[in-house]
Amino acid sequence: MNPSKTVELATPALIIDVDALEKNLSTMSTRHPGSKLRPHTKAHKCTEIARLQLSHSHTSFTCATPREIIGMAAAGIGSDFLLANEVLNTDRLSALAKVSENVQVTIAVDSIETINAAVRAGLHDVLIDVNVGLPRCGVAPELAGQLADDARKTGMTVRGVMGYEGHLMMVGDDEKRKTRVAESMKLLARAAQDVGGEIVSAGGTGTWDMHDETGINELQAGSYALMDTDYAQLKIPFAQACFVLGTVISRSKDWLVIDVGLKSLSTDHGNPSVDGYDVLFCSDEHITLVLKKDSAIGLANIGEKLLVRPSHIDPTMAMHSVAWVTRSDEVLECWQIDLRGW
Amino acid sequence: MNPSKTVELATPALIIDVDALEKNLSTMSTRHPGSKLRPHTKAHKCTEIARLQLSHSHTSFTCATPREIIGMAAAGIGSDFLLANEVLNTDRLSALAKVSENVQVTIAVDSIETINAAVRAGLHDVLIDVNVGLPRCGVAPELAGQLADDARKTGMTVRGVMGYEGHLMMVGDDEKRKTRVAESMKLLARAAQDVGGEIVSAGGTGTWDMHDETGINELQAGSYALMDTDYAQLKIPFAQACFVLGTVISRSKDWLVIDVGLKSLSTDHGNPSVDGYDVLFCSDEHITLVLKKDSAIGLANIGEKLLVRPSHIDPTMAMHSVAWVTRSDEVLECWQIDLRGW
Repeated sequence: MNPSKTVELATPALIIDVDALEKNLSTMSTRHPGSKLRPHTKAHKCTEIARLQLSHSHTSFTCATPREIIGMAAAGIGSDFLLANEVLNTDRLSALAKVSENVQVTIAVDSIETINAAVRAGLHDVLIDVNVGLPRCGVAPELAGQLADDARKTGMTVRGVMGYEGHLMMVGDDEKRKTRVAESMKLLARAAQDVGGEIVSAGGTGTWDMHDETGINELQAGSYALMDTDYAQLKIPFAQACFVLGTVISRSKDWLVIDVGLKSLSTDHGNPSVDGYDVLFCSDEHITLVLKKDSAIGLANIGEKLLVRPSHIDPTMAMHSVAWVTRSDEVLECWQIDLRGW
Repeated sequence: MNPSKTVELATPALIIDVDALEKNLSTMSTRHPGSKLRPHTKAHKCTEIARLQLSHSHTSFTCATPREIIGMAAAGIGSDFLLANEVLNTDRLSALAKVSENVQVTIAVDSIETINAAVRAGLHDVLIDVNVGLPRCGVAPELAGQLADDARKTGMTVRGVMGYEGHLMMVGDDEKRKTRVAESMKLLARAAQDVGGEIVSAGGTGTWDMHDETGINELQAGSYALMDTDYAQLKIPFAQACFVLGTVISRSKDWLVIDVGLKSLSTDHGNPSVDGYDVLFCSDEHITLVLKKDSAIGLANIGEKLLVRPSHIDPTMAMHSVAWVTRSDEVLECWQIDLRGW
């Protein structure tokens, strides 16, 4: 029998607040309707959430892995996929080429090697991935035009450019962030001019409202849907819609222990948060919590359930096979996190 | 067709060096043969590795989740399981009670609530989990005897005590660590006297050779089998036997990027390591690497494969569905990481 109340769920359990999710999707799609947003599936890895994004008018999606595109296409969600990541594996690229017989599949390239791998696999459409300041993937802006020419020589269609300003997502001051995003996007604009094509793709949840004048024509945000405590530090209008539910399994005089740990949430963006408590430390299967100094409550009892806010949503989602969809204390549905793996 | 060479594996891929694994298992079982070691399955979550531990004479196992015990019993590996963790969920405890009809299942309790949950589920055997200094689970040592009496009143058999000195695993100085372990185990010995029963269970990979005179009669080590860079800082004779294989997918003048990231390894014990490189940063799907200052090599080429040493093995294993078993550059087998989840 499926649980009907949140409190009945076996823990640790991934919980989605469906109203908060809907509100986040609505806020984003109001500002960036249709193809203005290319939602990033890597942040949730869940076709049911992608289906909601589709219902909010978005039909083009960003993906980080071949598996995400293949799963989305199999579920019949979306018609235009961008693999915003460099992939060299021939089997996986060939699987994408097969998918591209029915829907548009465009892959990011930033080198001759990635272009050649795409050609060998029978893919036809690429974006030039441009480095706009984050020391990760992307060709140097001044070399983008040449790389586009190289791609066209192989018969590829170059649909445009992408450039992720990931190093700026967490610049705390709004004005500073906006200024630096504008500077970063000048690099992308220059590359776009050299490259040609119709797509200029960039951005994320942290810069969702800073691209009005940067010249991009689609935003790649993903975390806005479910959010995390890291992004919540910014002044952005998206609410926490995903939690890990834990049970108090042990209690001493000074602390309590819940059954949520490093195997059910990621701590690379810092410790997670629990209302009323400070996290003493996280271990594989546990979080030890102490009351906040000014706490008005006492330690929860053994058996009580607590909601934990993850600090980084993407790797947290990838740790779970299912999410429980809730409204208030009611469990409405169970969604598969079905786009995991590579 | 299954890949026969490591270099043919699609990445990111979890790699096990079977000779290093065998040597680690052999080193441990020579010092702690048979029931002197109760290997912790939480560190690998893989019945094939447990099967090797069985072949090294160990028939009793430590587990952190009901799922681990249920999976081990279903695979026919082991005859005596300890759930070294507090669990309150009735369905999961009832499933363990069913398993206990065929093999010995003992669960850790540290409160009346956990005892009552075990009773309700039809379980019969418990260990009193004693707090020996780590602020996590475990009853205060001076209350252990009373809790054992409470458990016996419900009809439970109290098989003894356990106490995990996890706060001491990474004390860097060997002598200091040994002294502090001895102090910590005095707390467990006192509790053992009050509790009765035959089992005194404690210890881990970091204290594997420090229990000769502490009075414990079984060691709960798990990480020794596959190891990680955190434990490798200690002077212990276990070698890295598990890696994440990555492909260089992008290269700039000053750095390269591999397709291993926060979804394929855990960074809660610090960044992972790659020979010859420093990790600039890890992100969801990527690690950016720069050459070490004194490096004799140049940056690897796009398409080359690099081995990454995880800093924390337990949560890293939980991120993968399979591991590829290798000897030198040959792939011998593919093992399911089949004990994931709860």
